[in-house]
Amino acid sequence: MPSPVPSPIPESTLEICLRPFPASEKIFTPGSLPGVRVPLRRITCQATRDFDGRLVANEPVVVYDTSGPYTDPMVQIDVAKGLPALRQAWILGRGDVEELPGATSLYRKLRERDADLDAIRFQAERKPLRAKAGRNVSQMHYARQGLITPEMEFIAIRENLGRDAAQIKSRITPEFVRDEVARGRAIIPANINHPEIEPMIIGRNFLVKINANIGNSAVTSSIEEEVEKMAWATRWGADTVMDLSTGKNIHETREWILRNSPVPIGTVPIYQALEKVDGQAEELTWELFRDTLIEQAEQGVDYFTIHAGVRLRYVPMTAKRVTGIVSRGGSILAKWCLAHHKENFLYTHFEDICDIMKAYDVSFSLGDGLRPGSIADANDEAQFGELETLGELTKIAWKQDVQVMIEGPGHVPMHLIQENMTKQLEVCAEAPFYTLGPLTTDIAPGYDHITSGIGAAMIGWYGCAMLCYVTPKEHLGLPNKKDVKDGVITYKIAAHAADLAKGHPGAQVRDNALSKARFEFRWEDQFNLSLDPDTAREFHDETLPAEGAKSAHFCSMCGPHFCSMKITEDVRKYAASHGLDQDEALEKGMEEMSGKFKEQGAEVYLQA
Amino acid sequence: MPSPVPSPIPESTLEICLRPFPASEKIFTPGSLPGVRVPLRRITCQATRDFDGRLVANEPVVVYDTSGPYTDPMVQIDVAKGLPALRQAWILGRGDVEELPGATSLYRKLRERDADLDAIRFQAERKPLRAKAGRNVSQMHYARQGLITPEMEFIAIRENLGRDAAQIKSRITPEFVRDEVARGRAIIPANINHPEIEPMIIGRNFLVKINANIGNSAVTSSIEEEVEKMAWATRWGADTVMDLSTGKNIHETREWILRNSPVPIGTVPIYQALEKVDGQAEELTWELFRDTLIEQAEQGVDYFTIHAGVRLRYVPMTAKRVTGIVSRGGSILAKWCLAHHKENFLYTHFEDICDIMKAYDVSFSLGDGLRPGSIADANDEAQFGELETLGELTKIAWKQDVQVMIEGPGHVPMHLIQENMTKQLEVCAEAPFYTLGPLTTDIAPGYDHITSGIGAAMIGWYGCAMLCYVTPKEHLGLPNKKDVKDGVITYKIAAHAADLAKGHPGAQVRDNALSKARFEFRWEDQFNLSLDPDTAREFHDETLPAEGAKSAHFCSMCGPHFCSMKITEDVRKYAASHGLDQDEALEKGMEEMSGKFKEQGAEVYLQA
Repeated sequence: MPSPVPSPIPESTLEICLRPFPASEKIFTPGSLPGVRVPLRRITCQATRDFDGRLVANEPVVVYDTSGPYTDPMVQIDVAKGLPALRQAWILGRGDVEELPGATSLYRKLRERDADLDAIRFQAERKPLRAKAGRNVSQMHYARQGLITPEMEFIAIRENLGRDAAQIKSRITPEFVRDEVARGRAIIPANINHPEIEPMIIGRNFLVKINANIGNSAVTSSIEEEVEKMAWATRWGADTVMDLSTGKNIHETREWILRNSPVPIGTVPIYQALEKVDGQAEELTWELFRDTLIEQAEQGVDYFTIHAGVRLRYVPMTAKRVTGIVSRGGSILAKWCLAHHKENFLYTHFEDICDIMKAYDVSFSLGDGLRPGSIADANDEAQFGELETLGELTKIAWKQDVQVMIEGPGHVPMHLIQENMTKQLEVCAEAPFYTLGPLTTDIAPGYDHITSGIGAAMIGWYGCAMLCYVTPKEHLGLPNKKDVKDGVITYKIAAHAADLAKGHPGAQVRDNALSKARFEFRWEDQFNLSLDPDTAREFHDETLPAEGAKSAHFCSMCGPHFCSMKITEDVRKYAASHGLDQDEALEKGMEEMSGKFKEQGAEVYLQA
Repeated sequence: MPSPVPSPIPESTLEICLRPFPASEKIFTPGSLPGVRVPLRRITCQATRDFDGRLVANEPVVVYDTSGPYTDPMVQIDVAKGLPALRQAWILGRGDVEELPGATSLYRKLRERDADLDAIRFQAERKPLRAKAGRNVSQMHYARQGLITPEMEFIAIRENLGRDAAQIKSRITPEFVRDEVARGRAIIPANINHPEIEPMIIGRNFLVKINANIGNSAVTSSIEEEVEKMAWATRWGADTVMDLSTGKNIHETREWILRNSPVPIGTVPIYQALEKVDGQAEELTWELFRDTLIEQAEQGVDYFTIHAGVRLRYVPMTAKRVTGIVSRGGSILAKWCLAHHKENFLYTHFEDICDIMKAYDVSFSLGDGLRPGSIADANDEAQFGELETLGELTKIAWKQDVQVMIEGPGHVPMHLIQENMTKQLEVCAEAPFYTLGPLTTDIAPGYDHITSGIGAAMIGWYGCAMLCYVTPKEHLGLPNKKDVKDGVITYKIAAHAADLAKGHPGAQVRDNALSKARFEFRWEDQFNLSLDPDTAREFHDETLPAEGAKSAHFCSMCGPHFCSMKITEDVRKYAASHGLDQDEALEKGMEEMSGKFKEQGAEVYLQA
């Protein structure tokens, strides 16, 4: 019987997301714990044809893979059913959760009773899970108990990419993962109600991660588009996705996204809470917000942005700014604080929030509601005042073994970026930092993926653990599919540049393989090893579309007789064919070589 | 009578280039020397509507303008005639040049006699100029004689953008320009045969500049396209343009470009020299190269890339690299050195080259023929060996008062960038550095404007004087019009981010004005103040095309009732209307405020 719910992803986009990457196959590395089987992508390279025409094999390159089961031909994807519940056995196996008879949230109960929503509702099969009374199900709690979870082993395998036997000492062990989580230096966002995720870690001693924001607003966008954007973002490399929806049907949209997401999902619960009070910030209450947290926690949201640092006393500090408060959450709380002349209720109820977080293992992403929205406002007293409070809250959460990361700016000129990182590490006791950019100028709307990619790469190098992408539409409109991809690829570049600069073992393997392919005119390998093989191929083919051109020993930049790489190859070939592959031999043989080289004709490697 | 030569720029693109920027007018600031009249672009801003509905004017923003007479409605552009010869009177007025009866270059004479080329030939009206015997016409020579040229005054006015009266001490004076040029810390590329240029300066105590490469190859592109790309690149902000043509009709293409370019033009003369020997590097001779230098100097090329640092002894060092030699010029010279087992003839004839440079005021751009082409090869012995030689050559050029800048890499991971800058300043005695990127990863073909924009912004901050753009087509094909624009805008971002980070006085004026406009929902001003108003407007209109939306106090990101900027505005308005604009008043009045705020309704600023 066909599913009664129509697929929210139009076939065309789903088809693209289901297509394996060129020359790539999904491989799985098993762990020692039951069910640990880590998916990676292996890119096959063509052989190098050496000077004598012999083929010399090139090692395949294995890359980190965020695309989930979508690119696994062995998995039948049905978005109406959701992804396989990879972690379910691990979660239940720990014996510390209970299945609830139904949803706890009053709001969710009301939505479930509304027959008008049947048409857009995801048909959930599982009941919500919650920690048994008195238990704490956070990965940080397990870590502090000395327990290595399957999630931790999964992550250790995933993070070891490119580290070969020679680097055995620098290999990431499950114990190292556990220790970093126990110390609060890294988090594993993994709600017990989101068993579909492939575990990942956010911390500065691991690969730098990126987040992609999606979400509809009252003005535009639909459920279909948002699920599509999620699958699309993870295909290109998003490590986590934040659903920032503010329009109608937020609850139902989120359910579709969660059930189909192989990566952790983050939200800003205050957005939905505000919708529930018709946009009247001053009508927000702790009770309503609490119900929203539980509603989302029982759906499976993996981390919550909580703007608990927007304290009443910091609000006046923003009045003299060029761009006041630019964070949506920050301005809602500021408004609430002013209207009630009371301290931010997220701050006063912070311990209560921790109780919810640890019952589902939702991680904090402590929001920077007072981040600077312009170069002029960077690193001011409001921003750093809030950061101090976030540090204070971090320690409160850690007392309850709740995982924490800290959100950061924003708009910051290059020379002020490092101060942000240094101060955050110090004030927040090395909790992972998660920044939006930062944007290094204000003058390029339409190109803010680039202005912010510069700042993101730099702060990643300085120690930022996750970079929240900015798309070309920032400040102008909601991103479409192309914008999402442009944002993700830009941020993969920034994160990878940071991994290289930090000297992450193995990070350079892919660069070296691609550069070798480029130098040897293995065009197909150059495309296949790149972050976006489709675009690389398309750009090449614009000038030289013929298939022959892809094995030709020249390219359109310089033409057939004028390629620097070809000339170097000629030089190298000449040297090698005369046994001059060592410096000394080269220098000694140079004189003799000179004559022969001219005699034989220097264009020794011409080919049709 | 209509011009017999058809316009090489198709009307459509020329029309775009002739269109003034929105809300912008060309203004001219006069200097004290005759004929000094510096064009700048003034962007008018709309008024701010304050809380009582009163209009408060916003100052116009004046920006540096590289677009030349194209955007001046008072100038009649005819590409067949070329641009007005702005500097001609200054050049002739110095009394140290002579008009030659005809071209000196044998090659040029042969081209001029070829009737087949009439159809594509620019009808030049001026005869070539050359320094009188024994004279040196370089700006460095004048500077060292204590002479402030009109070019220097023009530059001082141009560079003072945004520095107001309060910053009078940091104002750039003509004397400062002279001193920097005299010391070799800055260059003014300004060939006496290129009087069309609006003088500009390259040095680290001035605004960071960018270069755009254009040029056809044997495989693709035409004269029309190249002239079009030049005008297009300067419209978007290219401070200089390099013509890297390697195909047919290089000489004629260059003439069209020079006669229509308001910015200095650079070339790599070895490319054309190689064409003259049918691509056989080993057939190159000093005599042929010399003729090429003179050919180009008499056309008006403002700077030459000369790969004199590719010394024989460095060549073997590249054999073990992942990507050998990737510079076209570098590989040509390496091949020549190996074939002849002789020292690079550019090195051995360096003083002879200086003699030519000073006779026309062509500046050296000492080429980095051994720059790294991959992350793996960054900062290696070949690269730094060559840099030492470039330092040695700089001092030789300076002895003859010839202007010099130094080319730099290439592919460099972030943590190795600063070493490049520090070493260059030290080894080359602070001669200006001019780098290609650098690219901070190898894995993103199709997005190399972004990988390199990251490195470019950083090295600009560290002290690099000019950034050579990289387009999205790098490594894949020749850039088209869209690629040129993407590359230029990306590099304007990098250069501006560097200016901000260096604390260039006045650099932040445009950021502040744009951010204020953004915060006040003056959408038109936000577009008009941006680097690319067309794209900013287009992106905004994708979601909210109605004209009303451009003055609406919300945008498509959050919808009408959910805008953080709107909420901040409400907060600020409330504070202001109660006289709470000062911190103290705000804190004291908070309690009372709270009640009133709720009473009056918090949504005080709702509008249709």
